[in-house]
Amino acid sequence: MFKRVLVANRGEIAVRIIRALREMGIESVAIYSDADKDALHTILADYAYSLDGNRVQETYTNMDKIINIAKISGSEAIHPGYGFLSETTKFAEAVEGAGITFIGPRSNIIRLMGDKIEARKLMADLGTPLIEGSETSIKSYEEAAKIAESIGYPVLVKAAAGGGGIGMKLVSHQDKLKEALVAVRNTSISLFANDSIFLEKYLSKPRHIEIQILGDKYGNYIHLGERECSIQRRHMKIVEETPSLAISYEIREKMCETAVRIANSVGYDSAGTVEFIYEDGEFYFLEMNTRIQVEHTITEMVTSLDIVKEQIAIAAGEPLKIKQEDIKFNGHAIECRIYAEDPTKYFIPSPGKITNYIAPGGPGVRLDSGIKSDYTVSTYYDSMLSKLITFGMDRDEAISRMCRALTETCIEGIDTNIPLLIEIMKDGDFKDGNISTKFLEEHSSLINKGSNKKKTIFVSIDDPQ
Amino acid sequence: MFKRVLVANRGEIAVRIIRALREMGIESVAIYSDADKDALHTILADYAYSLDGNRVQETYTNMDKIINIAKISGSEAIHPGYGFLSETTKFAEAVEGAGITFIGPRSNIIRLMGDKIEARKLMADLGTPLIEGSETSIKSYEEAAKIAESIGYPVLVKAAAGGGGIGMKLVSHQDKLKEALVAVRNTSISLFANDSIFLEKYLSKPRHIEIQILGDKYGNYIHLGERECSIQRRHMKIVEETPSLAISYEIREKMCETAVRIANSVGYDSAGTVEFIYEDGEFYFLEMNTRIQVEHTITEMVTSLDIVKEQIAIAAGEPLKIKQEDIKFNGHAIECRIYAEDPTKYFIPSPGKITNYIAPGGPGVRLDSGIKSDYTVSTYYDSMLSKLITFGMDRDEAISRMCRALTETCIEGIDTNIPLLIEIMKDGDFKDGNISTKFLEEHSSLINKGSNKKKTIFVSIDDPQ
Repeated sequence: MFKRVLVANRGEIAVRIIRALREMGIESVAIYSDADKDALHTILADYAYSLDGNRVQETYTNMDKIINIAKISGSEAIHPGYGFLSETTKFAEAVEGAGITFIGPRSNIIRLMGDKIEARKLMADLGTPLIEGSETSIKSYEEAAKIAESIGYPVLVKAAAGGGGIGMKLVSHQDKLKEALVAVRNTSISLFANDSIFLEKYLSKPRHIEIQILGDKYGNYIHLGERECSIQRRHMKIVEETPSLAISYEIREKMCETAVRIANSVGYDSAGTVEFIYEDGEFYFLEMNTRIQVEHTITEMVTSLDIVKEQIAIAAGEPLKIKQEDIKFNGHAIECRIYAEDPTKYFIPSPGKITNYIAPGGPGVRLDSGIKSDYTVSTYYDSMLSKLITFGMDRDEAISRMCRALTETCIEGIDTNIPLLIEIMKDGDFKDGNISTKFLEEHSSLINKGSNKKKTIFVSIDDPQ
Repeated sequence: MFKRVLVANRGEIAVRIIRALREMGIESVAIYSDADKDALHTILADYAYSLDGNRVQETYTNMDKIINIAKISGSEAIHPGYGFLSETTKFAEAVEGAGITFIGPRSNIIRLMGDKIEARKLMADLGTPLIEGSETSIKSYEEAAKIAESIGYPVLVKAAAGGGGIGMKLVSHQDKLKEALVAVRNTSISLFANDSIFLEKYLSKPRHIEIQILGDKYGNYIHLGERECSIQRRHMKIVEETPSLAISYEIREKMCETAVRIANSVGYDSAGTVEFIYEDGEFYFLEMNTRIQVEHTITEMVTSLDIVKEQIAIAAGEPLKIKQEDIKFNGHAIECRIYAEDPTKYFIPSPGKITNYIAPGGPGVRLDSGIKSDYTVSTYYDSMLSKLITFGMDRDEAISRMCRALTETCIEGIDTNIPLLIEIMKDGDFKDGNISTKFLEEHSSLINKGSNKKKTIFVSIDDPQ
């Protein structure tokens, strides 16, 4: 096993990885930007190295700096977390090239899955259901118009290198197609240095359901069931749960088998997620994420497994210790992502100093947080503060726990999306499991309902009742 | 179901009960002393009523004040938590007399189990194994000497109304017997207004193992397995775990059956715990606790049940919804009690203001806490700050998680027993499960090992390595 590992990330996921390393008896090396000198991930690690700067390009995505620190610190491996360099093939290659273990799948798998068009081809070969769309990169407006015509509007224009809602446009009519093609291509060139774009049929009430898989270096592959991540704001998941109410036992089995087959076909050797779109009893391959995902926590709650520890053990060359038949699913888990933002003002980030902080706790509550008292949320990075996860014997208990835990969470000095999350938990359609990726668009009134947080009423005994 | 419930307690257990009430959709009424005006239980409740004062007698054990607030606030029930008035028969009777539901068993059961001699008689009738000792209250020195002679020294002199190590003396020789009888009787008169004392054989390497039970008002009784609570300081449990490594499957079954039989025999209608002493394959009845226990949390971790919610539902007249065969035990859980105290100075309490606070979190970690940032620990009440509970697939994982979670917990401004708890988790005998209630006496060097907490090492890239 590794003696020392560098964590190439910040915030809650860096803390999550440091925790896994410590439980495994491995020393952790944190890296930190100037703004993160007192951040939780910095002060919880065994060693902390300054990145000298704040902008992402000079800090958490600066490959040379990070690999240099890994060498200097004697780190045998690098865990990239999610975001930043976690799915950058060039980084994985550079890490491998420096004789350091990249905690993730081999770089060629990252490359393959990172190219949406290449991945679609593979899926077609494997017989994985795909949403109708262009099989190759779109070369001209005329080609696009023909394909759009044949699959029918509305269609989505997507960047091959995109993901998480970035590099994607909905087109309802042919007269908007040209404009969308140009916009997505330009976005893709500027963000991903890649001009490949493609078309896909647009589904009206899709649900996002994904399968967590684990594969080792010895041909062993297992799945850990599904996660439903349909509640999104601007294509970013904000509420995830497992199991999904939407799918039958048979569909679940099929999706899990498909995910394992995909993993098997590429010799996938890490933790990974196969994402599907689900509508009306049919599922379609969306993409494969070759990293640990934000919402891995809910799978951990219902399986009792520690996915990050498994991921590290696999990277160190250990075979999977668990077999598919050993995985027992228990209860229901929900995750809410807490953001420093103002949902009532188009989700604008709300940086600043946290003046009062009380974390939730108690039965069935897990908190994966990157913040603490007196912490200052900077403007440089993603505004997610923490992930609140609740477990219940059933979905109702997980929801009432989430409501309770959100209500008792106190974050003052900045705006957060907690009031919105409480409204979602209390919504009738959410409670009935009547959700899709359009949920928030269709329930936009929840955004403005404002804080439903309970305040304690102080009563003097002499008060009239 | 109740609409509003008064929580007659403070600290982490009051918070625990408020959480259960909120998840059940029941309004909570907190009571608070002057020192607790900003305490977590006060600010998390829906309503908060001042008790006006600080001393326990004028606040959390003042029956008249509390029942009056229950009436004024329109509370339909009172949850007493543990300690304070939770096992005071007179309080349960007064609550019942005021037409308010006492969340606990009927007052006559509290009375019966509160009298150690009466409880021993019942256990003898039920065929429950008992440690050899006097069957009735000791009337004279001569009687005591005769009994001690027949069961053999060392013996324990115990107050019938005592518990938790209070009102108890070890006598190794006949020439110390008289003095011990007088001391224990005097303690018992002054603390419990009760002069009943008895003798019991002293076991040299006993383990403390208890069984959690639930009974409703319709004759349904189930057990939730055992908890081992052998790690104690001055007869107070500080580390608890489940399952216990000490007992075989057969012994566990026997203990659980015995506990359910006891509950059945008295028509026990709440959550309760039957405590046993275990040594060399034999178990002996110690006492029955008729309240929720501090360490109920670890049972919740391995069964996924919420015992406090069950207790409230039972008090409201609901039948048990779960059957014995539905209870599935999963994994291993450990609880560490975090105290504001200095273990190196005879565990002297360490009140004061918490100047810096970072709570532990992440996978497999539950925190039941009564504190928050900038909280001032007062001198008036018990010095337990919080309970840290970890879950693991197995005992090794639960221990490594506990070590990790203790290490990342930051409580500055006061002394805590966290360094001692870390040392216990790292101790070879503890890891091997080689423990008894004498563990800390026999491993007293752990107390002075001091802080083993990791500090982050900040490295500049220019530093030589």
